[in-house]
Amino acid sequence: MLKEDKAASGQAGISPVERLNALVAPDMKVADKLIHKGMASSVDLIPDLARHLIDSGGKRLRPLLTLAAAKAGGYQGDGHVRLAAAVEFIHTATLLHDDVVDESALRRGKVSANLVWGNKSSVLVGDYLFSRAFQLMVETGNLAVLGILSGASAVIAEGEVMQLGSARSLAVTEDHYMKVVSAKTAALFAAAAEGGAVLAAQGADFVTSMRAYGENLGIAFQLVDDALDYSGRQALMGKSVGDDFREAKMTLPIILSAARADGTARAFWQRVIETGNQTEADLHHAISLVEQTGSIQETMRRARAYADAAKNALAVLPTSEIRSALSDIADFCVERAY
Amino acid sequence: MLKEDKAASGQAGISPVERLNALVAPDMKVADKLIHKGMASSVDLIPDLARHLIDSGGKRLRPLLTLAAAKAGGYQGDGHVRLAAAVEFIHTATLLHDDVVDESALRRGKVSANLVWGNKSSVLVGDYLFSRAFQLMVETGNLAVLGILSGASAVIAEGEVMQLGSARSLAVTEDHYMKVVSAKTAALFAAAAEGGAVLAAQGADFVTSMRAYGENLGIAFQLVDDALDYSGRQALMGKSVGDDFREAKMTLPIILSAARADGTARAFWQRVIETGNQTEADLHHAISLVEQTGSIQETMRRARAYADAAKNALAVLPTSEIRSALSDIADFCVERAY
Repeated sequence: MLKEDKAASGQAGISPVERLNALVAPDMKVADKLIHKGMASSVDLIPDLARHLIDSGGKRLRPLLTLAAAKAGGYQGDGHVRLAAAVEFIHTATLLHDDVVDESALRRGKVSANLVWGNKSSVLVGDYLFSRAFQLMVETGNLAVLGILSGASAVIAEGEVMQLGSARSLAVTEDHYMKVVSAKTAALFAAAAEGGAVLAAQGADFVTSMRAYGENLGIAFQLVDDALDYSGRQALMGKSVGDDFREAKMTLPIILSAARADGTARAFWQRVIETGNQTEADLHHAISLVEQTGSIQETMRRARAYADAAKNALAVLPTSEIRSALSDIADFCVERAY
Repeated sequence: MLKEDKAASGQAGISPVERLNALVAPDMKVADKLIHKGMASSVDLIPDLARHLIDSGGKRLRPLLTLAAAKAGGYQGDGHVRLAAAVEFIHTATLLHDDVVDESALRRGKVSANLVWGNKSSVLVGDYLFSRAFQLMVETGNLAVLGILSGASAVIAEGEVMQLGSARSLAVTEDHYMKVVSAKTAALFAAAAEGGAVLAAQGADFVTSMRAYGENLGIAFQLVDDALDYSGRQALMGKSVGDDFREAKMTLPIILSAARADGTARAFWQRVIETGNQTEADLHHAISLVEQTGSIQETMRRARAYADAAKNALAVLPTSEIRSALSDIADFCVERAY
């Protein structure tokens, strides 16, 4: 999950995400109506809890990719808005279950649903939204799309279990970390873009490109997210940092720092990550270790490479405002960190 | 959820469930292979945890309904075994999430997965199996079946949320209870049978009948399950009783007893259900109150009526060994309590 999902960003000017949103605005409006219709239920707790998360200022980045891919492929039907709503529901369901798993207290700057309504409600409402997602996809009448999204959902769950199994362990490798990122974050970005492309029926090259764009963008986003969680500059700006640290998550900045650690630093990482014995002062020391070892820069360098791969994947598309906005989103994803 | 799912029954002789199993044995063998193939993952914890539940001696009653409905309709393809596996995965996923919600310690006579691997793992592996279920259904190539099962999944989650919202409240009505039972238990029985019937493409009457059979059977099963949880005879036989009592669940035996309670009994129910302040001795008193008020008999009487409705729904089917076994299962479901 992206911590980016936890708070709407306060960028000045128009970001490329907003530009893309404007390009698919009528479709997004319909998708949004389907989202609100789909979370309705005669059991009040369901819309109450779902609305808490869905109306909390998330950027709808994943459904945006679905709508953009469908539109870039010249799609004329009404399946893409249903698929976009389904993608947002799958994302919301994973956020709800993720917060239970992480025992999170905050999500998108608000008290997380599990703390307001309890873990049980979060689990069950997540299940409800997940089911609703599949009902919406059935309405598209497209089995390929159902296959892509059900496959992605299985991969996301696998990624979350992998991450769970490797928490609090300094033995986690870069390779393992990248597998987790590909599964828990990039799989849904990839499926969201691929699904929209499949609906447009523009052939295998177009589908492969949109999928590659989504996948690489998803990885870049997660790497930047993980870097920002140890950003001293971010801390100075009053933004939340240290969530991963407090949860002892083995993200790339720590993996790189621990690999470059001397004896004293290694003992520090063992204490704060493996034993989980840590204070707020330890976060400041962790940030300084991560910065001293150049681990933030290295994480960002890799994020840049994935963002470039996302942009390159767009090469098969004819020039268009959508292509340009998608390309700029890849840059924006990395640049938002500076 | 049925407590029946928590322990394989130790009936002497051949039950009608075993008879039906024998009638679809080759199909069940294939479905079973798909179940074991589907829960595989390179992330070891997933098959470990899934196997704990799936190989623990459950009767595979729901996939059995799918296979029986398909076979009764003369279905010749291979979609029914995939659908049967999907139905078992949806059932297993709900059990996993249900145990997290109930904070259960036992499931099918074994320590529950949430206690062995933690709640987090149970949530995520449930999500994985749920996704796998949809992948299997996509492989059937039948959108109607996907619609039926995704709809049922949404209804199940709604039922679980309803039940959660009405725990520890003596104000729960019979009507509310029946809605919960229809949603959390009968919806999957109904969808399992309906899905198999839809695959067989025998027309609307056949589909409606199989659905009605599944729905009424599911309600009967849950009513009997809820009655047995307060059965003094069951307690004498050394079988587990009192799970619902300890969780302060408002099931029909309590709803009926509380409605018939005098002042002293009412104060007792308020203490043990609404405040949750209870001991094991209170369970014995609860059982005697439930028995004195005839609430077990009344619950069983209603279960009998639903079992009869299930049998009546089979009238449109031509006579066959499958029809006979299905009919006997409805009787068996009620008779197992005596």
